[in-house]
Parts: sequence; structure tokens; C-alpha cells
Amino acid sequence: MKYGRTYNFSAGPAMMPEEVLEEIAAEMMNYRGSGMCVMEMSHRSKVFQEILDEAKADIKKLMDIPDNYKILFIQGGGTLQFSMIPMNLMKNGVACYVETGAWSKKAIAEAKKVGEVKVVASSADKKFSYIPDCSDLDIPANADYVYICENETIHGLTYHKLPDTKGVPLVSDQSSMFLSRPCNVADYGLIWGGVQKNIGPAGMAVVIIREDLIRDDLDDKLPIYMNYKTHADADSLYNTPNCWAIYCCGKVFKYLLKNGGLEAMAKRNEEKAAVLYDFLDQSKLFTGAVVKEDRSLMNVPFVTPSKEQDADVVAATKAAGFDNLKGHKSVGGLRASIYNAMPKEGVEALVEFLSRYEKEHA
Amino acid sequence: MKYGRTYNFSAGPAMMPEEVLEEIAAEMMNYRGSGMCVMEMSHRSKVFQEILDEAKADIKKLMDIPDNYKILFIQGGGTLQFSMIPMNLMKNGVACYVETGAWSKKAIAEAKKVGEVKVVASSADKKFSYIPDCSDLDIPANADYVYICENETIHGLTYHKLPDTKGVPLVSDQSSMFLSRPCNVADYGLIWGGVQKNIGPAGMAVVIIREDLIRDDLDDKLPIYMNYKTHADADSLYNTPNCWAIYCCGKVFKYLLKNGGLEAMAKRNEEKAAVLYDFLDQSKLFTGAVVKEDRSLMNVPFVTPSKEQDADVVAATKAAGFDNLKGHKSVGGLRASIYNAMPKEGVEALVEFLSRYEKEHA
Repeated sequence: MKYGRTYNFSAGPAMMPEEVLEEIAAEMMNYRGSGMCVMEMSHRSKVFQEILDEAKADIKKLMDIPDNYKILFIQGGGTLQFSMIPMNLMKNGVACYVETGAWSKKAIAEAKKVGEVKVVASSADKKFSYIPDCSDLDIPANADYVYICENETIHGLTYHKLPDTKGVPLVSDQSSMFLSRPCNVADYGLIWGGVQKNIGPAGMAVVIIREDLIRDDLDDKLPIYMNYKTHADADSLYNTPNCWAIYCCGKVFKYLLKNGGLEAMAKRNEEKAAVLYDFLDQSKLFTGAVVKEDRSLMNVPFVTPSKEQDADVVAATKAAGFDNLKGHKSVGGLRASIYNAMPKEGVEALVEFLSRYEKEHA
Repeated sequence: MKYGRTYNFSAGPAMMPEEVLEEIAAEMMNYRGSGMCVMEMSHRSKVFQEILDEAKADIKKLMDIPDNYKILFIQGGGTLQFSMIPMNLMKNGVACYVETGAWSKKAIAEAKKVGEVKVVASSADKKFSYIPDCSDLDIPANADYVYICENETIHGLTYHKLPDTKGVPLVSDQSSMFLSRPCNVADYGLIWGGVQKNIGPAGMAVVIIREDLIRDDLDDKLPIYMNYKTHADADSLYNTPNCWAIYCCGKVFKYLLKNGGLEAMAKRNEEKAAVLYDFLDQSKLFTGAVVKEDRSLMNVPFVTPSKEQDADVVAATKAAGFDNLKGHKSVGGLRASIYNAMPKEGVEALVEFLSRYEKEHA
């Protein structure tokens, strides 16, 4: 790769498009004649307001977000969202969660501090290797929302069909699949994504929330930063936002629009993932960790027959210039995260390497 | 200035040292042979851990932080700190606040949601143009802490002597004076600063907290992100931090160390501020807004005799290539923020311009 860059299979933060990084570097000392770097700009300045407005307009276009949704840029990552969601949305004090792995479990733990949590489905029985049937969940009529982690980064699961929430708002953590394929925003009450996986630098979550879910009775009750209304009313400028992340993500939004939008990304991502899954399916050494129909297009966990060999493969890939293929510490094995910015050539090169490794160790 | 850069007097985000920006641009496509940009690095990788460790070691050296203090990098800026401080430190449910302007007022409003707030001194009577006498405050014995905003960015006030807190821990918002002069960390229970004023890009606060103030009885009570213990136990890596801000701030820490540390910065900042204050003191058109003994070295608010003329001066400075001299919307007038990275030449050029303006409008 150019500049001696490596194929980086990190689960996040992760690869960004090379041409986006080139643009950012070129604008570092003086952003488009403003006389300053974006990091130095007042968030109240006209030049920054344009960056913010464009980022919002571009993601709205990309995801075809209806007018009755607000787009918020909030710091604190997923961890703050795990708390903000129940603190803002639990009006009746009851929420339903589907448990599919590490990230939905973290969301559940935080929601339990706020109100009653009903785990309406789980795949804990089989080490989170599948998405449970969500076609007829036992959802109480007074439930405030149904929560899913739409792509479990660690376990490599994804929903290919959304749960039937029986009219209750659906809340989805899309962090590790954000902007990887089209989605119908109107199917959700709230979508959020940490941007550090499929978009840009860590330090920001994008929250897309249906306006009627933003409450105006929480001003005295919640820390001001934790209230979605604070961010919605001030257009994400109540306090100084993560301006740099907005700027970088904005560039990625433009890059995606220029390259065919989310339809094109989905096609590319399916092709890329197929290269790796097809290899795993025929391999006698490597095994995918997830049932076929629930496999993620973004995070591909796999194992060899032993922990020792897993470690040997990780070391061998690293030596060959492939980075971050070690599985998450909680599950072990290997994991290749192949987000939007990972070129198909990277996946092909990895498969070629693994294939050669398999032959040499047969 | 090089690269057609302007003298940017923004109150924050604000100027960064030019050589730091040059380094960042040079490392964009491939950070020191890692094969990736810092924005693309796993926060669990060895290469990022080194960046984090160095940033912590360097700020510790710069501020001479004792070993019984933890250094935390937390997202959410000052607004989240306004809530985290009372949520974590109000054990007895009583805290004392000194009210000196917009930022201490915001801190007070959030603390009131958590417990009893005693405003033990205020300069509201004279539009926050001075620091009230804090030599004999009425502090209850059970007070959990005494809170000050050590430099009020909007009003241009600074403490040149710390309050006598009668043994109660002192909590200080140093955002707009962070690393502008030496301070004796042991005098404080907690110091925090948003980095987007005097250090680096927006999206992070540095919290320096005495270890005994970190509580272990809050795990079930607070949102996990809001608990200082979460960040302290995980060395600021509980979740993905704002890696980019840590990287950029780390470079600024190194720049400050290389340039003589905080003693040298204080000297430079005093000289720089004197250029502007000396001009204001003799001017017949411009008047400083703050009593002499409480003037900030970082934020210098001033006015002409009329709002119309204030606006005219702002427009004239802008046309002449000086940026962001408009006062905060809540107080009007003009304000020059002259943080560490503003060169003395910038202040001299501004004074020369204002002096000429005065002559032309005499």
C-alpha cells in the first residue's frame, strides 16, 4: 500500500479512506483559506458552522433520514449512550433488551440502574453465536422501547431482519455496522453509532432520534449533558463538540456519497466478506464462529483447533504486515474487521496468506 | 505568518503551536512506521498505549503532579464535569461554590441537581468584574468541597491567590488557564481543564484528582461513564477514549517541556498580556472590563464607549486579518484570548492596529 500503510483489521478505531486522510493532511495548516486548522476554529464561527451543517446534510442524504428525526453529535461514545438511552427514554420505567453479546450486555447493565429491564431474547446459551428469533417477542404494552445491538463487534453477529417490536420504538446500536448498508430509518425510534469503527476518529457518537422521543420534562432531572433535548435544541452546539471528529466524519460522508452511497457500500461489503467466509467454509484449519445466516459483514471471528495455533497465526499475520487480527480478549481466537475502508485487496491478501499458512501446517 | 495563517484570538478552540500542527500533518498517513494514522489505531494497541503513557508522563512532569493524584482523560468537556464533580464528590450532600461568572454559574446549576449548594462568595453585584475576597469564607464543616472557576473565560477574571478552604478539598476549573502558569497541585483536591482552549482539539477534559476522593461505593449508583473510578481503574481506557485529542495534547505537552515548561510559559504570558493591558490602561477609547488585580492573563475583555463602535472595531480587526475578537454574546464588547500558542508578535500587531484605529477615530 501507498505510504507503507498496512492492512489494518482492527475492530475500532479502524482504517479510514486514504484519500480522506490525504485531504485532512493537506488542510492542516490552513483550512481552505480560513487561516487556521479545524482544531483551532471557534465552534461558534461561520467556517465551522458550515462544516457542521454539511456533515449533517450529508449523513441525512446518505441514510435518507426523514425530517422528523434529529441528528445529534455527542461525546462519550457508546458507554455514555448506554446510560443516556434509558435515562431519556424510560418514561414508564420498562424497557426490553435482546441479549446477543458483550455490547448488548453492557447496555443492559446500565439500563438496570435506571429502571426495569426485560431481556426478551438471548443467545447466551450458545456463546452468542446466533441471533435469537425475534418474530414474536413477549413485549409488555407499556414498554418504552426494544433495544438491540444490531451488529455485535466481538462475536461477529448481525441482524439481517429487524425484530417485530409490536409498535414499541426500536432502539439500535449500529456502531460497528454504521453506514455499511442501507437501512430504513423510519423503522427505528433511535439509531446510534460510535463513529470510531466504520467512519472516523474515536470520541463521538451519532444519535439519530425521532423527535417525539425527545422529552421536555427532564431539564431538572438529568445532568444537562445527558439530556437529548440539550443537544437537539442547540443543534449539537450546546457546548464545544468534538469538532475534529465532525470534520473528519463529514469528509467520510462525502467520500461515501461520491462512491455510490450505502447501496454501493453494501455490495462492496458483501463481496469482501464473501471472499473471507468462502475461504473459512472450505478450510480444514480455520472455522467461523457464527451460524451462517447471522454472520456479520463487518467483523469476522474465526478459530483454529487450539489456542496455541490461534496465537501462532496472529503472530504470523502480524509479521506479514496484517495488523490487529487477534480476537477480543473475552473470546480469544482471531477476528478480521473489514469495515468500509478496508479494500477488497486487503481481504484477498489475507485469505491468500491464511491459505498458504494452512498448506504449510497441514 | 507562515502558510497564510492568521492571528486567531478565539476563546476556544484556539491557536495551537505551528510546529505541533506540522508534526501532526507529517505523521498523518503513517505514524512513525506503524503503517497507520493515529485516528486508525486500536486504543488497545501497543503503539497507542505508548502515546497515552507519554502524554500522562509529560503532563505529570509539566505540572509536577504528586503520585497520589490520578490523571484522567474524559470526553464530554466541561459540561460533563459540571455534573460529574457533584455526582462523585458530594458524599455529605453539601458543596460550596464561588460565583464569578458564566462558567461558575453553569457549574452551580448542575450541582444543585445533585445536592445542597452554598454560594459562599459572588461578584455578581458588579457584573463579575472582580474576584471576591475568599480569605474567610463561611464553609460548613461538612462541606464536601469548595469549587472555583479559576479563570473565567467570558469575563476575563483570574484568581491570583487561592481561597482559604479551611481544610475542605478545593476543586478548580482551570480550563481557560490550563498549563498557562505553574500551580501547586497539592493545594487542590481536583483540577480539571477542557483542553480546547490552551492545549489541543475540543472533545476532552483532563481531570487531576487526589486518589482519596475517588469513591468505591458508586458503582451501582452512577452511570458507568460518570464514575471517576471507572476511568481511574482503567487508566482512561475503560472505553475508547478521544485518542486523537490525547495524541495532539501529548505533542503540546512535549512542546511546552521543550520550551521551558510552565515557568517559562508564565513569563511569556505575563509579557504578552502586559503589552495589551498597558495599551488599554493608557487608551482613551478602549477600556478593560476587569479590576486591575484580578485580570486574566489569558482572556482580555474590553469595550469602546458604544456597542456600535465595538462592532465597528470587530469588523475592522477581522478585515485586517485578526480573527475572533468579538466578545461573548452574553457580555458583548471585544475580547482577545491570548493563550500559550499566541505569539507575542500577534499581540503587538493587534495593539498597533488598535492604536492606529484610535488615532483615526479620535
